[in-house]
Amino acid sequence: MKIYLAGPDVFLPDAVDIGKRKAAICARHGVRGLYPLDNAIDLAASDASLRIFKGNEAMMDTADAVIANLTPFRGASADAGTVYELGYMAGRGKLCLAYSNDPAGYVERVARFDAVTKSADGRLIDRDGLTVEDFGLADNLMMIHALDLHGAKLVTPRQAPSDIWHDLTSFEACVVVAAGRASGKTS
Amino acid sequence: MKIYLAGPDVFLPDAVDIGKRKAAICARHGVRGLYPLDNAIDLAASDASLRIFKGNEAMMDTADAVIANLTPFRGASADAGTVYELGYMAGRGKLCLAYSNDPAGYVERVARFDAVTKSADGRLIDRDGLTVEDFGLADNLMMIHALDLHGAKLVTPRQAPSDIWHDLTSFEACVVVAAGRASGKTS
Repeated sequence: MKIYLAGPDVFLPDAVDIGKRKAAICARHGVRGLYPLDNAIDLAASDASLRIFKGNEAMMDTADAVIANLTPFRGASADAGTVYELGYMAGRGKLCLAYSNDPAGYVERVARFDAVTKSADGRLIDRDGLTVEDFGLADNLMMIHALDLHGAKLVTPRQAPSDIWHDLTSFEACVVVAAGRASGKTS
Repeated sequence: MKIYLAGPDVFLPDAVDIGKRKAAICARHGVRGLYPLDNAIDLAASDASLRIFKGNEAMMDTADAVIANLTPFRGASADAGTVYELGYMAGRGKLCLAYSNDPAGYVERVARFDAVTKSADGRLIDRDGLTVEDFGLADNLMMIHALDLHGAKLVTPRQAPSDIWHDLTSFEACVVVAAGRASGKTS
């Protein structure tokens, strides 16, 4: 089984190293991790971003599954690029798995950045009067239920690890699920 | 042509009304808009969020195209649910169109919320040391180039309208592109 390793990990200072650590965990469980930075892209090229896109899309098309890192990124929700990729893989009918190293619910996450209050008509709203989703889920319902129906429940730790960008415990839990599916077990 | 109308519009206080306005614009151009709130969901049900997901997914599966509102939502990037849906539609091979009522580039958007500086190794980074994508694009490259390759270039106004949540000029420009594709013109 080939697994596309989606996440804002590619934006870390040690992005290459964390990709190697993730690939090693996959190998230990008998599956193969495909990491976006495995594609050799000339970042000085004028169309570098398009080349990255094409490389990532080709890698996703090759993969049987995705493990997405949905840890909140610059706000209450997951990284937009990662979320796009999760959607793409769901659309392609691939196995969709994900984790978040922040177990907080969406309302709590929004309240870190914004004033969450109750509107006259009973909705939870942000500063601009836009509804704050309040279903007790960790992030927008589209991603959370996509996992429920196209893969497995979002994996979160009981409490956030001290290093949310480098702790791979919840990632490894996803790999175990993927490996189980690959071998036909219903884990 | 049936077009799924994705966007954080569903979180507006007048969410139903804006859906009607979007559907009316579609009808005027000879295409049909499908709006998530057209699905009648009992929000008091214990599995309301799952029902919403299933309704949206079924609607997307029915649609030939998506027009996604990628206006920044609670941060530098588009709404996560909308981004998921754009990815899903790309994965399903549907026509992917989108607009953003904020024409600002991603680096400028991040700088509104975060301190963007240059790292010792020459990357633009945020407060946590994570790379800030700097390709001159409006948002994460995965969405922007998905539009280039699976639909048409992101539509943005020259400058942000005074009401970014209700101005439908850029939305209508997407509808015109969709209608042109539906009638076989290459607009």
